Amino acid sequence: MSLLQAAPDQIAVAARRVMARCDELARVSATTDGIERVHLSPEHARVNRLAAEWMRELGMRTWQDAAGNQVGRIDPVGAGAGGVGGGAGGAEHPALLLGSHLDTVRDAGRFDGIVGVLMALEIVRLLRVPAAGGWAVPLPFALEVIAFSDEEGTRFGKALLGSSAVAGTWDDAWWDLADADGTTLRQAFLEFGLDPGRIGEAARRPDEVVAYLEAHIEQGPELDRADEPLAVVSSIASARRFRLVVEGEARHAGGTPYDVRRDALLGASEAALAVERICAAEHHIIGTVGQFEAFPGAVNVIPGEVQLSLDLRGEFDGERDRVWRGLTAELDEIMGRRGLRWRAHEVHAAAAVFCAPLLQDVIRTGIAATLPPRAEAPPVIFSRAGHDGMALGALTDVGMLFLRNPDGISHHPDEAVATGDVAHGIRALAESVLHLASEPR
Amino acid sequence: MSLLQAAPDQIAVAARRVMARCDELARVSATTDGIERVHLSPEHARVNRLAAEWMRELGMRTWQDAAGNQVGRIDPVGAGAGGVGGGAGGAEHPALLLGSHLDTVRDAGRFDGIVGVLMALEIVRLLRVPAAGGWAVPLPFALEVIAFSDEEGTRFGKALLGSSAVAGTWDDAWWDLADADGTTLRQAFLEFGLDPGRIGEAARRPDEVVAYLEAHIEQGPELDRADEPLAVVSSIASARRFRLVVEGEARHAGGTPYDVRRDALLGASEAALAVERICAAEHHIIGTVGQFEAFPGAVNVIPGEVQLSLDLRGEFDGERDRVWRGLTAELDEIMGRRGLRWRAHEVHAAAAVFCAPLLQDVIRTGIAATLPPRAEAPPVIFSRAGHDGMALGALTDVGMLFLRNPDGISHHPDEAVATGDVAHGIRALAESVLHLASEPR
Repeated sequence: MSLLQAAPDQIAVAARRVMARCDELARVSATTDGIERVHLSPEHARVNRLAAEWMRELGMRTWQDAAGNQVGRIDPVGAGAGGVGGGAGGAEHPALLLGSHLDTVRDAGRFDGIVGVLMALEIVRLLRVPAAGGWAVPLPFALEVIAFSDEEGTRFGKALLGSSAVAGTWDDAWWDLADADGTTLRQAFLEFGLDPGRIGEAARRPDEVVAYLEAHIEQGPELDRADEPLAVVSSIASARRFRLVVEGEARHAGGTPYDVRRDALLGASEAALAVERICAAEHHIIGTVGQFEAFPGAVNVIPGEVQLSLDLRGEFDGERDRVWRGLTAELDEIMGRRGLRWRAHEVHAAAAVFCAPLLQDVIRTGIAATLPPRAEAPPVIFSRAGHDGMALGALTDVGMLFLRNPDGISHHPDEAVATGDVAHGIRALAESVLHLASEPR
Repeated sequence: MSLLQAAPDQIAVAARRVMARCDELARVSATTDGIERVHLSPEHARVNRLAAEWMRELGMRTWQDAAGNQVGRIDPVGAGAGGVGGGAGGAEHPALLLGSHLDTVRDAGRFDGIVGVLMALEIVRLLRVPAAGGWAVPLPFALEVIAFSDEEGTRFGKALLGSSAVAGTWDDAWWDLADADGTTLRQAFLEFGLDPGRIGEAARRPDEVVAYLEAHIEQGPELDRADEPLAVVSSIASARRFRLVVEGEARHAGGTPYDVRRDALLGASEAALAVERICAAEHHIIGTVGQFEAFPGAVNVIPGEVQLSLDLRGEFDGERDRVWRGLTAELDEIMGRRGLRWRAHEVHAAAAVFCAPLLQDVIRTGIAATLPPRAEAPPVIFSRAGHDGMALGALTDVGMLFLRNPDGISHHPDEAVATGDVAHGIRALAESVLHLASEPR
């Protein structure tokens, strides 16, 4: 059942605009030969300004919140603020939040997060008829588009900084997190022009919010393998991230016989292989060592210290924690045998977030409305990748729509999404919003 | 048989001056919490100025050569240049070269290389009586002290840059070597104020040189275990250094199942462990992975590329090359099994250098002259660590004296040498020079 009054051509134009804007945002990068846009960087400020401009084109009022998230809001017809202008606080209608993030990993693709923000803007455009100064369909809630400032955690190791601020789960311990240059999160806030003392102002109250909906590429090969353009997300993986430090003794590479070496790099190498061996033996656990730095890092010195990262994900928190306990026992054995010390600093922990059944249902309906009629229901996928919804789950109900990601390549320059799939996604998400609006409240 | 006319007190003062100057040079560092002094850095320029000052105090004429080595020369009594003043070239007497290097690894100790340069200065002081304007003992050759500019290869990956220039074995391919910031060796020469076009001027002719003698800490535990202060070096290890590149595919750490991963970090970890396993099974082979960098290096991205170093040493070239061939077969297997590509760039190769029998003999005599009388001959050691003598071997005969290195700790802030051992070393080296001078030529 389609509720959306939009010509197919309108949707196709919207999808092409999303793709063109992905290209435009890809050019805002700290590197000239790839895409790198980290939290509180000059590139972050530039994409926020671009997003704000695009939001204002749609008649939204905009602000950058206290956590550096870029927000646009449009109130329903008849609301006091009339949809344009007015302050950020004190809105009378609760808002349906649509969004994703604009930050990237290093050497990133151009769609992860970004396509979700841009699709959200197209939903606003479709549901509103600017010429008439009101809504094509009367919505009982305001619409907000949020471009989150930090989902990846690339710069400070801690992910979901933007959405955690909005969810009201900010932890003051994070202020002392430092980036690779030693700049703390606190200093970076100040340099960006944000006041750390006002971080609480980014937090929303549950009664101000209807729900959070996000479209995102799958970042995995399942939809591509199943030849399906879209999926309903059932839950978002439980994740923990650690910084592991392995300590041995730096010594001359020539003069030191093997029997007296305490080589931190060899211990860390065994650790990385143990992560693979232990996790691959499990059903729904993925562990990855993505960072690995050896010190002092000279060709002729036995490494005395290695710092490595561990990213551990699972469908269920308990399973994930059981695997972590098994890993620590394995690391104790490896390091003990090699005369090394090791320790772990947990830099991120997020419980699995289950998407709200009602939202799964409206997204399923939305997907059905855009695809040709058929017998089987749309795929339902558990997301091993983390998303802003993990943080938003502490504030409100979360729903997610996945777009097919060719070959599952993500966090890589070859990351892709088809324009036709984006068009299906836009229609599915717009239909989902309308179905949600038609639910008795 | 002692030829040296020096009071024990003079030697003790000399050893204490060496130790104090090691402390003084340790303060010339790019880092505030350790010692780091790499090739063509501002710190390199500062220690060259200090060394030149100390050389001039001894009446030596000094110059920084075309490769950034700091040289001091004193001609024998009756030579045309009178020992002081005059140009760098055209000396009438061939010179005995004494020296070592002033560059360091990262987070280095304060004695590796440095103690040999400072001991050489004390040899000049002991053999000359400045007040009398001549030599305490008439020498048939000039004495030169060379503080080599790059032995470690810390900055450009290629070791022995300073001594290779002196030996006349400079390779123009090295100009394009780049440091971690992308600065090429050529650019670094220019920034340091050196003219790459004049590098040939640093080269010596064999007929200008008598021999090369160097004192150095052992950088291994053998003398400490044997409770011996000094040793004669029989040969310097054969060494090859490689930069290994492992290529896989960067992908999202959450969404990518193990069966489609091509994780460069796991392949590189297996490679590092294979180096240990294969080399430890050999008698005189040491292999070390000291550098290991993962790209893109994000906590939530599967590494698509790893660059690692391999330092491979052996007593004999053939043995070393056989092990390298075995390693390449092992790496082919590992990378093939994991769907990875790999390649190796050889950044350094040095054949084993055998110390000249005559020089081994005069050093043995020198050691005997400083130690209490006893039955057994001084220890003779094969050096697994590389030294400037490896390059100088292409120019002239090489002799080396090792000093005890407590616990064999080197390339580490805890690197140590005892003042008493330095005193023994100074006397042994001075006696060696005198014995060499008394040899029929």
